[in-house]
Amino acid sequence: MPKIVDHDARREEIAEALWRVVRRDGIRAASVRTIATEAGWSAGAVRYYFPDQDGLLSFAMDLVSRRVTERISAIEPKGGSVQTVVLRYLDEVLPLDAERRAEFDVWLAFMAQARAESDAGTLQEHVDTVHNGLRQLCDSLLHSLADAGVLKDGLDLRREVELLHALLDGLALHAAIQPDRTTPARLRQLMRRHLDSLMTEKP
Amino acid sequence: MPKIVDHDARREEIAEALWRVVRRDGIRAASVRTIATEAGWSAGAVRYYFPDQDGLLSFAMDLVSRRVTERISAIEPKGGSVQTVVLRYLDEVLPLDAERRAEFDVWLAFMAQARAESDAGTLQEHVDTVHNGLRQLCDSLLHSLADAGVLKDGLDLRREVELLHALLDGLALHAAIQPDRTTPARLRQLMRRHLDSLMTEKP
Repeated sequence: MPKIVDHDARREEIAEALWRVVRRDGIRAASVRTIATEAGWSAGAVRYYFPDQDGLLSFAMDLVSRRVTERISAIEPKGGSVQTVVLRYLDEVLPLDAERRAEFDVWLAFMAQARAESDAGTLQEHVDTVHNGLRQLCDSLLHSLADAGVLKDGLDLRREVELLHALLDGLALHAAIQPDRTTPARLRQLMRRHLDSLMTEKP
Repeated sequence: MPKIVDHDARREEIAEALWRVVRRDGIRAASVRTIATEAGWSAGAVRYYFPDQDGLLSFAMDLVSRRVTERISAIEPKGGSVQTVVLRYLDEVLPLDAERRAEFDVWLAFMAQARAESDAGTLQEHVDTVHNGLRQLCDSLLHSLADAGVLKDGLDLRREVELLHALLDGLALHAAIQPDRTTPARLRQLMRRHLDSLMTEKP
């Protein structure tokens, strides 16, 4: 009888090994070889799923999207003011802990790779997916604030979505560059200040 | 008589060859070999100045700092309102044309490399230099607005410096990811809107 292989379970195992390597040694350390060692497999077995470095990077990037999406769907959208709820969502996309910093590092490596390659079609698609997903989140958060009637009059929401989105990525970048200056507490403070600047003065 | 070599001129020649390669083929294409070919030298001659890829990347990063600094010192700080002058400075650090996009690509590649290497001491120093320089620029621009009395009351300037700085980098990143959406015109519009939000209402 042929051996039945659960491919999904194997991919999941590779995902977990990949993530351990990225968290411990950084994304550059993630090669077919190091991940095989981490998972206790042969390089050939890993290569069956991911023939090259680009495939592996794409897989890592998928993993990041999935993790972020899962955390966001797990958020309880009730409880507290609308601003509190909005900040709860933003917390999930800011690099506030080692998990989320590792995710940002994968994203950054991926992005730099996509920029540097002349034929980066597939890589660029992944970058676009994550990028558009985050913009969509910014869009729906600002619209909830607008619907709740707490935004200042006369704001151009489309413009504000782009500014919020750029600010999120810029802050994440700064936390990666100088973690001692742009600490998690500082990130949250700056994000709160930005939201405050969009909202009507409290009476 | 020994041959006299003008090392500065040779470095300058390498710099120009490096820049042509980066603009044409992206930072990843910049290796000792491709730059030697571009400059019409032997790889050995280039390697005399830059023994490895990291040395070359550091040189590229220095070049970016130098170019930005030169453009900024060339700005005429008089003429127009203080806001116009501030926007003139910000234009020089936003990726509004091919030159400035190439600079941002170098910076991004450099930054990703520094993040990915476990022993990235020298790379990180370069990242810090450029990062701190841009923050300093944001700081002095916001202080000129404050001195001119056009900022809203009660702003925490240190916080606003960090927000402006993060916004600049975030916007540059977005222009790199989706140039068709985050166009040069859009970049300037968003930056203008952000500055407006900090300034007192015009009478």
